[in-house]
Amino acid sequence: MGSIKDNVLTLETLNPNVIELEYAVRGPIVIRATELERKIAAGETLPFKKVVKANIGDCHATGQQPITFIRQVLALCTYPSLMDSAAFPSDVKAKAKRILDNCKGQSVGSYSDSCGLSVVREDVAAYISARDGFPSDPNNIILSTGASDGIKSILLLLLTGKGGSDRAGIMIPIPQYPLYSAVISEFGAYPIPYYLDESDSWSLKLSELERAIGEARPHCKPRAIVVINPGNPTGSVLKKENIQEIIRFARKEKLFLLADEVYQHNVYAEGAQFFSFKQVLMEMGEPYDTMELASFMSASKGYMGECGFRGGYAEVINLLPEVRAHYYKSISAKLCPPVIGQAVIDCVVNPPVPGDPSFELFQKEKDFVLAQLKEKATLVTKLFNSIEGISCNEVIGAMYAFPRIYLPEKAIQAAKVAGQSPDSFYCFALLEETGICTVPGSGFRQAPGSFHFRTTILPQVEELTQVLTKFKEFHLNFLAKYK
Amino acid sequence: MGSIKDNVLTLETLNPNVIELEYAVRGPIVIRATELERKIAAGETLPFKKVVKANIGDCHATGQQPITFIRQVLALCTYPSLMDSAAFPSDVKAKAKRILDNCKGQSVGSYSDSCGLSVVREDVAAYISARDGFPSDPNNIILSTGASDGIKSILLLLLTGKGGSDRAGIMIPIPQYPLYSAVISEFGAYPIPYYLDESDSWSLKLSELERAIGEARPHCKPRAIVVINPGNPTGSVLKKENIQEIIRFARKEKLFLLADEVYQHNVYAEGAQFFSFKQVLMEMGEPYDTMELASFMSASKGYMGECGFRGGYAEVINLLPEVRAHYYKSISAKLCPPVIGQAVIDCVVNPPVPGDPSFELFQKEKDFVLAQLKEKATLVTKLFNSIEGISCNEVIGAMYAFPRIYLPEKAIQAAKVAGQSPDSFYCFALLEETGICTVPGSGFRQAPGSFHFRTTILPQVEELTQVLTKFKEFHLNFLAKYK
Repeated sequence: MGSIKDNVLTLETLNPNVIELEYAVRGPIVIRATELERKIAAGETLPFKKVVKANIGDCHATGQQPITFIRQVLALCTYPSLMDSAAFPSDVKAKAKRILDNCKGQSVGSYSDSCGLSVVREDVAAYISARDGFPSDPNNIILSTGASDGIKSILLLLLTGKGGSDRAGIMIPIPQYPLYSAVISEFGAYPIPYYLDESDSWSLKLSELERAIGEARPHCKPRAIVVINPGNPTGSVLKKENIQEIIRFARKEKLFLLADEVYQHNVYAEGAQFFSFKQVLMEMGEPYDTMELASFMSASKGYMGECGFRGGYAEVINLLPEVRAHYYKSISAKLCPPVIGQAVIDCVVNPPVPGDPSFELFQKEKDFVLAQLKEKATLVTKLFNSIEGISCNEVIGAMYAFPRIYLPEKAIQAAKVAGQSPDSFYCFALLEETGICTVPGSGFRQAPGSFHFRTTILPQVEELTQVLTKFKEFHLNFLAKYK
Repeated sequence: MGSIKDNVLTLETLNPNVIELEYAVRGPIVIRATELERKIAAGETLPFKKVVKANIGDCHATGQQPITFIRQVLALCTYPSLMDSAAFPSDVKAKAKRILDNCKGQSVGSYSDSCGLSVVREDVAAYISARDGFPSDPNNIILSTGASDGIKSILLLLLTGKGGSDRAGIMIPIPQYPLYSAVISEFGAYPIPYYLDESDSWSLKLSELERAIGEARPHCKPRAIVVINPGNPTGSVLKKENIQEIIRFARKEKLFLLADEVYQHNVYAEGAQFFSFKQVLMEMGEPYDTMELASFMSASKGYMGECGFRGGYAEVINLLPEVRAHYYKSISAKLCPPVIGQAVIDCVVNPPVPGDPSFELFQKEKDFVLAQLKEKATLVTKLFNSIEGISCNEVIGAMYAFPRIYLPEKAIQAAKVAGQSPDSFYCFALLEETGICTVPGSGFRQAPGSFHFRTTILPQVEELTQVLTKFKEFHLNFLAKYK
């Protein structure tokens, strides 16, 4: 008889790094939300008619419409017979032709080079050069399967391959995007958490970086620092002086810089501005401009929100040539990122310009999405700060709010009884009573004794207004219940 | 001054697993081939006018045309405004609508579940059920970014997370597809090579499995066995009895079965037939039908050859529920495979049937590709066996030939002087003199003292004939030169 004890994989024999790995954005609360969606679909009566998935930055899922120009280019790349159709503007045709001419056999069904199509890499480099005012080399551009894949491929290089205090230490902000903690777990590396200052708009303090690395040094070999700017989940945007401090710190401590800049198009607040790490590092000149830096970008965020196409890229500068050769080799076994996702990236970094037939519509659609996000950022910040027991830093950029919730002692006790962290307990109650699915702050990590949750600002304005009203009602009831 | 010694990453500090990792299909010879292509494009005169990339199974790159039905479905999924166009048949529209209805916000730009869209998983399960005559559960289907990603995600589970003799041992065939050795290096696992019997059509012998695991046991914990069927690079197809033997062996040794079945549509020789591991295992009944098995499939091979879309799936059976939960969690941080690649998979597993408007053209295109591959398999086998100093097992399936070359002693000495393995020396000479890019057998590993190379059978028939003529000429000159 084949009995359970015959299994190769049990909890005792499964890779312990896999057991440790957590990814809260798709964690238990999301699994429960999906169950509730199924119940509704099956006709069950719940306290709400719809589950609102505010757990994940999934733009199109919440009703955001694709950018016409992008989808037209992709359609022509996919089915070139449409090149003859009068329904497609000439610049769309030219863009698709340029991409197809760069594909082997003129098909997006052939593999590209592992680093991506050369025209896309050239267009990315031109975009970065124009953005920063410093030249970017197409040979430093590596296209990836979403930004996540690019981030993993860099962290892989930094592993020391040994256990114990020889493990690579990776500095990550707290709160952080949980991809980082997940990959660090998977790789058996050592996370070095540094806390962002919630009392000062989630700013990044040099003294905290010093504390964090000092405490971690006996346990690991510090190798890299991750900075997320604009911040996920915090919604903050770093000032130039702050970036300079981080770069000086990284040089002093000999750390590889990883700049997660996937929200570079998502800055809303008046006066706030995105500065790339590359630009600041180049402006600082010697000896900083020879530091190793990887900056990551994605097709999934910004105004396009094309998550499903899994497009992304990294600019990786100042690698030693022999290290770069090993890096390129290491990504070659993955063959290549999705070619059609590379085409999305090309549309983003090299969009229509004034005079192009597609320009007007493109600009209108782009502006609309960004204006809506700006409106929603304000709406969410205001609402949260108007409620008793909640405080929320201004959503300056990215697509999320990360409000702090002050929970009554009785609620904390009730959570204990339920075997949940207080913020999970709160978020589960929110889901069960209102259908609003958020992610508990513990999924992103948070300062001890503080509780938060992350919500996207993505639902369409009208829906978001209703969601916030429902949320307020829930929250006040929750406070009353556990007073 | 920022000098080189300031770099975080040097050959001394780079992850040693990355240094060790090799992926010959995109190795040094391919880098050289790309250089030669650039020289030709720049107008340089070389002994040939074109580089023939016979190194990689990249169907569309060699002129194979996409299947119309697939591309039409993808175009509608990408740009749904085309739904109104009379140029698309009704079954194409219905398929695209079914996929879009399953996407959040009806957009392929939204994330799917990490395991993939439910309709695609259901269609895959129905395809497997019909293929094998045994039920397949959609909950066991995990879509992936090409088959490679699925393979990595399973091997990750099997790692023991420790070094030395505690490392997970993974049995791999020799010759093998170098993804396996690359991933094993990256993961710091221990490869357990078992040799296929070249003198008997690359068959897999039980005694060799016993030898291999016996010798490896002091050095690792054997955890899994990889079988590639149809074989890459060997072109062999396993007989059912052979699969039964492997399954019995895996059960006896408590090994997780990984069946790389991406060439399941590519069987050419009369009388040869593909049997899936799942089918054989189910037929064998207790206690075998409760064994853990992962079978991998890809959108990149078969008759469709849609490599660039990075579609793939795994069927993973008999995992313990608690292990499966960790597995699903471990893939969730990657968010999801490309949604449009999932749509390709859906077209492959649920294609038009007789009576559908697209059926006739679909069948004609599919039959044409497979008939051409069959013709080329015969052509290649015959030609290689007609040349002095070469022997080649029949190309029964997959897309490659792996001929053995008997090199003169003087050539082996010349290779030594050049600091190359004899087969690399031979393949580099072939490239420099004829423009034909193949992969040396050492990239796939081979029995000590034997030399091979892998070539695809993908160039179009007329070009392939010319390539083979040029190859024969080169080979005879090479023999004469080093006689």
